[in-house]
Amino acid sequence: MGPHPAVAAIRLAVRRVLHDLLTEHHRAPAAVPHASPHEPPSSRPRSSRDVPPSPPLVLVACSGGADSMALASALAFEAPKLGIRAGGVTVDHGLQTGSDLRAAEVVQRLRELGLDPVDSVAVTVGRAGGPEAAARDARYCALDTAAERHGATAVLLGHTRDDQAETVLLGLARGSGIRSLSGMAAVSGAGGRYRRPFLELDRQTARKACMVQSLPVWDDPHNADPAYTRSRLRHEGLPALEKALGKGVVEALARTAQLSRDDADALDSWAGQAEPTVRDAAGFLECAKLYALPPAVRRRILRRAAIAAGAPAGSLFARHIEEVDRLITGWRGQGAINLPGKVVARRQGGRLVIRQG
Amino acid sequence: MGPHPAVAAIRLAVRRVLHDLLTEHHRAPAAVPHASPHEPPSSRPRSSRDVPPSPPLVLVACSGGADSMALASALAFEAPKLGIRAGGVTVDHGLQTGSDLRAAEVVQRLRELGLDPVDSVAVTVGRAGGPEAAARDARYCALDTAAERHGATAVLLGHTRDDQAETVLLGLARGSGIRSLSGMAAVSGAGGRYRRPFLELDRQTARKACMVQSLPVWDDPHNADPAYTRSRLRHEGLPALEKALGKGVVEALARTAQLSRDDADALDSWAGQAEPTVRDAAGFLECAKLYALPPAVRRRILRRAAIAAGAPAGSLFARHIEEVDRLITGWRGQGAINLPGKVVARRQGGRLVIRQG
Repeated sequence: MGPHPAVAAIRLAVRRVLHDLLTEHHRAPAAVPHASPHEPPSSRPRSSRDVPPSPPLVLVACSGGADSMALASALAFEAPKLGIRAGGVTVDHGLQTGSDLRAAEVVQRLRELGLDPVDSVAVTVGRAGGPEAAARDARYCALDTAAERHGATAVLLGHTRDDQAETVLLGLARGSGIRSLSGMAAVSGAGGRYRRPFLELDRQTARKACMVQSLPVWDDPHNADPAYTRSRLRHEGLPALEKALGKGVVEALARTAQLSRDDADALDSWAGQAEPTVRDAAGFLECAKLYALPPAVRRRILRRAAIAAGAPAGSLFARHIEEVDRLITGWRGQGAINLPGKVVARRQGGRLVIRQG
Repeated sequence: MGPHPAVAAIRLAVRRVLHDLLTEHHRAPAAVPHASPHEPPSSRPRSSRDVPPSPPLVLVACSGGADSMALASALAFEAPKLGIRAGGVTVDHGLQTGSDLRAAEVVQRLRELGLDPVDSVAVTVGRAGGPEAAARDARYCALDTAAERHGATAVLLGHTRDDQAETVLLGLARGSGIRSLSGMAAVSGAGGRYRRPFLELDRQTARKACMVQSLPVWDDPHNADPAYTRSRLRHEGLPALEKALGKGVVEALARTAQLSRDDADALDSWAGQAEPTVRDAAGFLECAKLYALPPAVRRRILRRAAIAAGAPAGSLFARHIEEVDRLITGWRGQGAINLPGKVVARRQGGRLVIRQG
């Protein structure tokens, strides 16, 4: 008799990602000094045949919650079969009393699953960008450090399709276009370090897999705290949306994320190719040439130009870009447009001048 | 003392659209026989100087609800100042007892506003596509007929920013990509007949404008009937989302619509330009050339090809296109893919063959 369907599902999801990692690992060894990045992979020098390369290490980032415990259990099961070492990291955010004991408990559970090495990393959460963003920044910083210390090939994250749906809705609330609808990537971080095997799996499956494997899980009280936007979305917003639109909403949102990501990538590449063609010899943007581009491409070029001039990407909203765009599409002699980061955009003699100060 | 801010807002919105219509009207007269469409407008023959052209007619589509009554009142106020005739149409869907009396009452109110001509059109709502789609089809058909009968330049529709937000969420629930997130267009229909002046105005403003002008409005019981998806969304889904994400959600959704529309237009044009370049001399799609395109562009070409082969656009979902795409990106000798409308896609000798039967 095979494993429970939920367990089979989490293992399959992890197996796929480990296969991808192995393929990439064999194709492009992590450290080959002096090899040109443009050389085709097959011509790269091999490491010495006498010293077998150490097996790759994959870490799981684990909070002790159902999603990441399920992920840890699947990694512990699948990695050895593929000659991969499996380790774990838990981050102690220090935001709740006893979080250090909680972290120690997670370390213990990961070791019981057979993971090695297992780290607990205590971080200090700042305040920049709000409580959720600050905690996220501190967490990824700690995970980066842990991955580098152990020379890990990848860090697996337990985000599920439900998390993805929430992320899309959070992006939708910003109203800043399709890039913010594209949610979390299956592969992200420097060199594709972060992998999200559960992005197409629902939260319920992860929870079930923990249950049938008798894995104790911890429910982070933050996840149910209505002070957090994501928690309100999870417990009130999304259920109400499902009630109105039907049960397929989470899947539809996750699919929207993927489609939006591909669309945003294509349009970004178009803007990147078009940009040099709309600059004059002195490097200024020519309004007539910008005017001839599709609005979607033109606005992306304007956004890139504003960021290049020093406007912080995070504070540059669609309405800023629309105002700059009107210098091109609705020119009636209007004055300079002030953008975040003290960047100023003005039209001068058929050219767009975007600069700081 | 000027008008109440809500009344000023609805009038400004209508004035802008009427200005656009006048500009287009003068630039391209509706009926100039034998003029080549490629000839520049200035060289078109003028109508005889002795017979002044009749002033353009703009109709408002009015259900008697607050949005379209506000629209009717603003049209009645603004049109004469611009030398435009203002008329109205109300559609009797025959779905509720006494709907004929209701329609007669709306006609009476529109006449009291000074609109002329005013029509009531009774339609028979079919069943295709569900109750909401069937009613919409019947309504637009009736509006088209009325516009043609009166030789109207345009038909104004009272959709507000709130309607737009609901439409975006309905599109999101389909999970079929950014085109379905682009909501309703400010200008649509054959020759740009339909105009939506209130698309950036909130429902509350329209309601307020009716109140301060003492216009009686009718609340369609369908709008509050939880049997309708849009009604559930309006009364439960969207309020819950606003509670979780903040009051800016409606505005963010409306902005997402505009950005998505521009993005979808740009990608469609890219796909249109790329398509001939990936076909061989016999007109077949070449897999290697398709593979080299960005996924967003490639999938649009595949979708167009499937529709050209006879697949009904409305039944062709993202998952169908993904499966066809795997013939290119994940080729392992898989068999033919069945698509809606008895269309079959298969890979043969490096070519993609998509045809019916």
